[in-house]
Amino acid sequence: LNTEAMQQAQVRLDILTKPLGSLGRLESIAKQLAGITGNPRPQISKKCVVVMAGDHGVASEGVSAFPSEVTYQMVANFIRGGAGINVLARHSNADVFVVDMGVAVDIDLPGVINRKIDYGTRNMVIEPAMTYEQAVKALEAGVEIAKDLIKNQGYTLLATGEMGIANTTPSSALLAVFGGLKVEDVCGRGTGIDEAGLKNKQNAIRKAIEVNQPNVNDPIDVLAKVGGYEIAGLAGLILGAAANKTPIIIDGFISSAAALIAQRIAPLSVEYMIPSHASEEPGHKMILELLGLKPMLLLNMRLGEGTGAALAMHIVEGACKIINEMATFADAGVTGP
Amino acid sequence: LNTEAMQQAQVRLDILTKPLGSLGRLESIAKQLAGITGNPRPQISKKCVVVMAGDHGVASEGVSAFPSEVTYQMVANFIRGGAGINVLARHSNADVFVVDMGVAVDIDLPGVINRKIDYGTRNMVIEPAMTYEQAVKALEAGVEIAKDLIKNQGYTLLATGEMGIANTTPSSALLAVFGGLKVEDVCGRGTGIDEAGLKNKQNAIRKAIEVNQPNVNDPIDVLAKVGGYEIAGLAGLILGAAANKTPIIIDGFISSAAALIAQRIAPLSVEYMIPSHASEEPGHKMILELLGLKPMLLLNMRLGEGTGAALAMHIVEGACKIINEMATFADAGVTGP
Repeated sequence: LNTEAMQQAQVRLDILTKPLGSLGRLESIAKQLAGITGNPRPQISKKCVVVMAGDHGVASEGVSAFPSEVTYQMVANFIRGGAGINVLARHSNADVFVVDMGVAVDIDLPGVINRKIDYGTRNMVIEPAMTYEQAVKALEAGVEIAKDLIKNQGYTLLATGEMGIANTTPSSALLAVFGGLKVEDVCGRGTGIDEAGLKNKQNAIRKAIEVNQPNVNDPIDVLAKVGGYEIAGLAGLILGAAANKTPIIIDGFISSAAALIAQRIAPLSVEYMIPSHASEEPGHKMILELLGLKPMLLLNMRLGEGTGAALAMHIVEGACKIINEMATFADAGVTGP
Repeated sequence: LNTEAMQQAQVRLDILTKPLGSLGRLESIAKQLAGITGNPRPQISKKCVVVMAGDHGVASEGVSAFPSEVTYQMVANFIRGGAGINVLARHSNADVFVVDMGVAVDIDLPGVINRKIDYGTRNMVIEPAMTYEQAVKALEAGVEIAKDLIKNQGYTLLATGEMGIANTTPSSALLAVFGGLKVEDVCGRGTGIDEAGLKNKQNAIRKAIEVNQPNVNDPIDVLAKVGGYEIAGLAGLILGAAANKTPIIIDGFISSAAALIAQRIAPLSVEYMIPSHASEEPGHKMILELLGLKPMLLLNMRLGEGTGAALAMHIVEGACKIINEMATFADAGVTGP
């Protein structure tokens, strides 16, 4: 990050008409954005949420409350504007991009960005979810999409979102492997499975790790063996945002699993990440801790799609407005402390 | 609350294209708004933050990092639009109303609503902050302002804000009395006093409670003896919002102290309150617990003015848009769980 811009931002924050540091996270976000962009008075103009979709072979183990075809159906819902992310992105004045990273069926809906690597992952309980080459290809797709959005389309704030029936299962597996944690501690109920379903999901994750023996020192190996295409794409998107000096808001559990991969590939990428909410999914807090990020929104949400990130955009923009629009003690004729 | 409208809202929430309950607080807020307004598809149109200002005799005990004249100076800053609350209210498309409830000097700035009860409170370390009659008058002023904003000006969402140098001191006193808590547990550093300043502030609060012996069973007696005019006005505003079936967002520590008075006067008023952020001021979480409210924003803020409430407006509006704009499983052709 640009430390000179950050220092200049701090100097300004300290002369604004408020007790020192009293705007907390708004001030630290303003400073982070100064460091990311090199502009001590950072501005946000175009914003977007990138919703990546993929299917999961492990869904055949019955780990989700919903059938796999819902991934495609929800992609169609995103394109028509009727999903939760559409409503909340519109509310935050952000555009939504939908990317097919690996949905199990062909998609010919207008507006869907086709970066399909394969028709869903393989069932990781039996074999690797994807090959190493497929994982690299999916990461690269994400990097390229970020670059296009930033360099060609002028977006200055990105956010992650996803759709993929069963994708809390690979996300839990990634957390267990990278964090060296027990499966029963990292695994939650996703879209809402019962106690027996939870046990079944935990067993599937345990088996997947046992069968595939992912190498924790090679993040792409872990991603390939127990990850997913939309997760890989988002990890690439995050790396691409960082490479192009653009802040990116991380949504909930699955997006954070992607962020964890990005961090393991390029540790400095964390400096470009802005956390959003604390999901109800129990593993989410653990991933945020591994990343050293603290959630800003406590809304008991667990929908994904980028819904928490879309809401957090309002906070990030508010932080920019604070540093740009607030009066100083001198301007306002207010006695300092 | 209107339980029929709430039930209808719940029915709709459950058929929207998302796992049951997965939008957490957004869903419960939508349901609460349905109950408050009687409309199962609640809408928010005009929004405002009411910033009430008052001075405090106890400031002469040196309990704040800022001198009392800053109250007036900040009122002038509010009117010019340069304060934190102006920036964040604009960002949430909300109007700001500034009310002089008891600033120590005359104010002749255009746009300030004059409901001055007195030129600051008395020093509560020596005598009651105000008389019982003054406390009632201040409460009534708040009730009347709420009624005017809702009935005559058409606001459908209110938020509380305040300015008053030294006002974390009476707020801490109110919390200690109503909660039966130790002063050292409820008292924080406000705008940023040092360790010696904190001890001095705690002693002032202890003395104020000892000298005045507030009667915890008579909330107006407690308010009169160890409260403040802007706090009383806000308590009235909250009661007025509830009486006129309008939701009101509660800002930080001082606003929550006002909410606690409102609750002690009329327990059902809590159903009309929507919490916003968790302030850095340690007593804030305790008040929210007494009220049974949970914060939605974790931003380490401690500015007051209504800044946390202004940010939370975006979440509340988002909740309304979710229930009104999201597609149902049937409409979207998505398979349910």
